[in-house]
Amino acid sequence: MYSFFNNQFLPAEKAFVHVSDLAVQRGYGIFDFFKAVNGKIPFLEDYFNRFYRSAEFMQLPVSLSREELKNVVYELLQKNGVADAGIKMVLTGGYSPDGYEIATPNLIITQHALTMPSSKMLEQGVKIITHEFRREMPLVKSINYTTGVWLQRNVKAANAYDVLYHLNGEVSEFPRCNLFVVNANGEVVTPAIHVLEGITRKNILSLSGMEVKATTVTLTDVLQASEVFLTSTTKRVVPIVQVDDAVIGNGKPGPVVQRILSELVKKENA
Amino acid sequence: MYSFFNNQFLPAEKAFVHVSDLAVQRGYGIFDFFKAVNGKIPFLEDYFNRFYRSAEFMQLPVSLSREELKNVVYELLQKNGVADAGIKMVLTGGYSPDGYEIATPNLIITQHALTMPSSKMLEQGVKIITHEFRREMPLVKSINYTTGVWLQRNVKAANAYDVLYHLNGEVSEFPRCNLFVVNANGEVVTPAIHVLEGITRKNILSLSGMEVKATTVTLTDVLQASEVFLTSTTKRVVPIVQVDDAVIGNGKPGPVVQRILSELVKKENA
Repeated sequence: MYSFFNNQFLPAEKAFVHVSDLAVQRGYGIFDFFKAVNGKIPFLEDYFNRFYRSAEFMQLPVSLSREELKNVVYELLQKNGVADAGIKMVLTGGYSPDGYEIATPNLIITQHALTMPSSKMLEQGVKIITHEFRREMPLVKSINYTTGVWLQRNVKAANAYDVLYHLNGEVSEFPRCNLFVVNANGEVVTPAIHVLEGITRKNILSLSGMEVKATTVTLTDVLQASEVFLTSTTKRVVPIVQVDDAVIGNGKPGPVVQRILSELVKKENA
Repeated sequence: MYSFFNNQFLPAEKAFVHVSDLAVQRGYGIFDFFKAVNGKIPFLEDYFNRFYRSAEFMQLPVSLSREELKNVVYELLQKNGVADAGIKMVLTGGYSPDGYEIATPNLIITQHALTMPSSKMLEQGVKIITHEFRREMPLVKSINYTTGVWLQRNVKAANAYDVLYHLNGEVSEFPRCNLFVVNANGEVVTPAIHVLEGITRKNILSLSGMEVKATTVTLTDVLQASEVFLTSTTKRVVPIVQVDDAVIGNGKPGPVVQRILSELVKKENA
């Protein structure tokens, strides 16, 4: 397997950064992640838009133009000869002489095996837990997942699939996924603010023939919902049937999540 | 200059981590930082206590015992032949196969030139700015400084020395320093919660013959203070004479900061 580092392809096991990088010193950097399916990358422009937007916000210049970066990504897929894969692009704060000031970013592109949710998970739905927290810069795809990684112990101890953040009664997002709810009025809603705007979330919000809204979603909305599901690039849509100790609806995945998943797959293949 | 990486000394320029480390992937890790003066490390036990405490909280086992780690630190100082230095110990989340789960931590110890505040700074005092924010895990010395690093642009644009965090009217800390205030009642106070408990702060709180309290400190307390100063391992005590556009006291460093600095230096050399 090859990776790409700044300006060259190299074997994945040889991709190292010096410890003076601000990612190591100060957890400072951004990234993005997308999938290739049959050698094609659905919604690539959306992921690239977000990557360059995060980079600019975080004061990290990208050494490659969009066109150059796109060529690198497709060349990486070709070199690795895998048609289905996850691609991660990380842009770090660079080698900082004083360990605090932003320097020239390092660009690291790595390819990963793509693991989609199992059919059992889609048929039975999953349990999630909740945690009182809001990320410090939710709109930016920064590498800071301190709380998310730290909570994995709780997720496992509860035999859960993921953890939902909430604050002051409002829910926001999972560490790596967005939340959707079919609320008590039968509306399909997703939290509007304090969330990373996922590309899968964006695509669901714009599905034709369905009304899906971004608005305030409370923890009560979640507990009283007929259906709850999470979305992400690799997970697409996963039904949630339990939140902490509360069962959602009748405890089984419902018709809305099924319909959205099938519309989303169509859109990916369009 | 040498560094130490996991179990060996190596030239500082050869200390690299693989990009799969959770520090690079998820900004996950802890550190500590202390100084050697004339080859001695003041308050070493305090720094070690905090390092092992942060590591435990963040679910990162330290491969070396306190005794072994102490020996490594002194051997590093000896190898580098510099009597005055800053020593940084970073413990990362390790090489994570899935880029999210904690793995076996990497331990990185690096030595740095020690730069103390200039005498001009101590005589004239500095300006700071303020920012509405609270760190997500202030008690842990995690490597996450996303907001602090990001704010450096504002600090420089304002020609300031540092930035003070506040939320809901209460001040907490600087990204890398603690805050002290001589309030309108003449009491010397420092924020009690939502702060990293600095070793310099701890030493000032326990100075004999002085009453210094950890309590709630508001932004109003700061603006109405007769003296304000910040503290850290390398900076010791730096007087603050301007907060955003407001001048503190008579705009000059006062007698309390001077006295505390001299008591602290005595304690360091004890």
